[in-house]
Amino acid sequence: MAQTVRLAVVAGDGIGPEVVAEGLKVLDVVAPSVGLDVAPTHYDLGARRWHATGETLPDSVLEEVRGHDAILLGAVGDPGVPSGVLERGLLLRLRFALDQFVNLRPSRLLPGVASPLAAPGDVDLVVVREGTEGPYTGNGGALRVGTPHEVATEVSVNTAFGVERLVRDAFARAQARPRRKLTLVHKHNVLTYAGDLWRRTVDAVGAEHPDVAVDYCHVDAAMIYLVTEPSRFDVVVTDNLFGDIVTDLAAAITGGIGLAASGNVDPTRRSPSMFEPVHGSAPDIAGTGRADPTATVLSVALLLEHLGQADAAERVVRAVGDDLLRRGDLGPRTTSQVGDAIATSLA
Amino acid sequence: MAQTVRLAVVAGDGIGPEVVAEGLKVLDVVAPSVGLDVAPTHYDLGARRWHATGETLPDSVLEEVRGHDAILLGAVGDPGVPSGVLERGLLLRLRFALDQFVNLRPSRLLPGVASPLAAPGDVDLVVVREGTEGPYTGNGGALRVGTPHEVATEVSVNTAFGVERLVRDAFARAQARPRRKLTLVHKHNVLTYAGDLWRRTVDAVGAEHPDVAVDYCHVDAAMIYLVTEPSRFDVVVTDNLFGDIVTDLAAAITGGIGLAASGNVDPTRRSPSMFEPVHGSAPDIAGTGRADPTATVLSVALLLEHLGQADAAERVVRAVGDDLLRRGDLGPRTTSQVGDAIATSLA
Ligand SMILES: CC(C)[C@H](C(=O)O)[C@@H](O)C(=O)O
Ligand SMILES: CC(C)[C@H](C(=O)O)[C@@H](O)C(=O)O
Repeated sequence: MAQTVRLAVVAGDGIGPEVVAEGLKVLDVVAPSVGLDVAPTHYDLGARRWHATGETLPDSVLEEVRGHDAILLGAVGDPGVPSGVLERGLLLRLRFALDQFVNLRPSRLLPGVASPLAAPGDVDLVVVREGTEGPYTGNGGALRVGTPHEVATEVSVNTAFGVERLVRDAFARAQARPRRKLTLVHKHNVLTYAGDLWRRTVDAVGAEHPDVAVDYCHVDAAMIYLVTEPSRFDVVVTDNLFGDIVTDLAAAITGGIGLAASGNVDPTRRSPSMFEPVHGSAPDIAGTGRADPTATVLSVALLLEHLGQADAAERVVRAVGDDLLRRGDLGPRTTSQVGDAIATSLA
Repeated sequence: MAQTVRLAVVAGDGIGPEVVAEGLKVLDVVAPSVGLDVAPTHYDLGARRWHATGETLPDSVLEEVRGHDAILLGAVGDPGVPSGVLERGLLLRLRFALDQFVNLRPSRLLPGVASPLAAPGDVDLVVVREGTEGPYTGNGGALRVGTPHEVATEVSVNTAFGVERLVRDAFARAQARPRRKLTLVHKHNVLTYAGDLWRRTVDAVGAEHPDVAVDYCHVDAAMIYLVTEPSRFDVVVTDNLFGDIVTDLAAAITGGIGLAASGNVDPTRRSPSMFEPVHGSAPDIAGTGRADPTATVLSVALLLEHLGQADAAERVVRAVGDDLLRRGDLGPRTTSQVGDAIATSLA
């Protein structure tokens, strides 16, 4: 008997609906083969809805979404929406309200993919980025706005509870990988209060995992290593803002954000986890058929893995790998042609 | 009649004294040719002093240093000093107490220098990093340390006063460069309070500089552009923490931190400005003669420029450029051989 997966789909704006269509296409091929029956509910959220109604994420919609097993998100935003409105009101609200504290971002340089680095070597890392704390909390404020005496603050909030659960998740992931290496990326020589908490937590949890090699790297030094010796990284654990920065660089050196997948995971499974490409809504190419759906397809692989279907996930990753290998020989293809090719090879 | 330059020298730890010796060697050759008489005062500050006395920067020493025209710093720190002690107590204390609000970091890919990028193109950018605010203020704190209920915060403080003076400096620099382009790097879609202040300030000061083209880039997107299209950047203006991150990546793609110079400048000249290589004390290679003094020599060029000696500064940069071009043909050289070569070509 098929197991039903209630999937909330937020296709969003710009290229979001185009890439999500391909992600669902691939999911529709793979899911039945492992006894899953995907039941999507489409939610109209994003710039279009905000322009029409002023709403970002109504409470009632959030509660409906909460009743699903997982979420697939394309991209939200367009240049007509003031900065922060959809980021804080929709995307970050979902991540925070659904307690998706593990923002999971693998970067692997697949064969056939061009890197901007002359000698990238073997890149296969995963960033375990904290998703519900740090400078992303929206704490802070502003005084005397618009005057010469304005003061604007941003507060990075780090709790033992929040850091420890993330670090535990990262160690578990490191333990399950062949190299068993974990690197904390922070800036504890300047951000001493938060850095100290992160460091002590990694030390303490590390003591329980003697088989995982632990390393530390200041975020600025991580920039250098990511372009000179990216193979030194296996699992990277870091806070919300450093994770945002590090993952875009990791994506860039492994073929760009057109290929970068992510999961916003609540490992406790109390709330649905959300899978989304790292890229944005790219309004400049929306509707042209030029968007690469690969990042969304790889996000679907992360979704399958989260649903306990590691084999199916691996098949999707392999199909993407095959498609990437063939790209050199093929001319330009449309978004749906890429999705078709991957889906066909999986059928 | 020669003009005396009272130069406070903090050679520091590790490779610091070795590279500073070469910087001074070059300065001693160039200064007399433009009528400058360099009078150095050496200060024993850094890990050695901390180990011996527990002192980082005694008030009396800070006041002595303040009486100088400029500061040349090598590098401070060794693995035996707890993280943050010398960073907060010495390096950042100098930057903050001397109100060095313009942290100036040029990155230029010079001919003959290898970049880790396959196709770097023409890279010639300068990051104007805020030096006295942001997440570097040391604001924040920790509660219930060491318990499961610990909360650690870091507060980024941004003031209209601090942001505006930095942005004005950046626009002036952009105006003096051939491309006249300024890019604000921030994350205003998440850090909305600070981002808003930075954005409004760049808009307002930009309106007074219609000849400068203004661009904006989220810090995560900046990572991507720095490895795929670094030539898009001319002057980058950004906060203290983003600047730390962006400048290490900019250094990495233009030949590494062995070549990266910086100035911590108080443009009002009420306090002495401080010039230092971006690299650290590199205890692993200290005493081996393998440290590259180039970053320090280029920091001396920034010092000369700050002293109003733009021609002398340009001569030093050219001599470094010539030396870099010759490197391919020469075998490995020691720190002092590199300094000798540059000094000789300037003599
Ligand atoms: C859009 C923005 C809020 C988001 C983030 O900063 O997390 C994005 O950059 C990402 O990495 O998913
Ligand atoms: C050593 C550290 C405090 C310093 C900084 O973060 O500013 C260094 O990384 C730099 O960039 O000069």
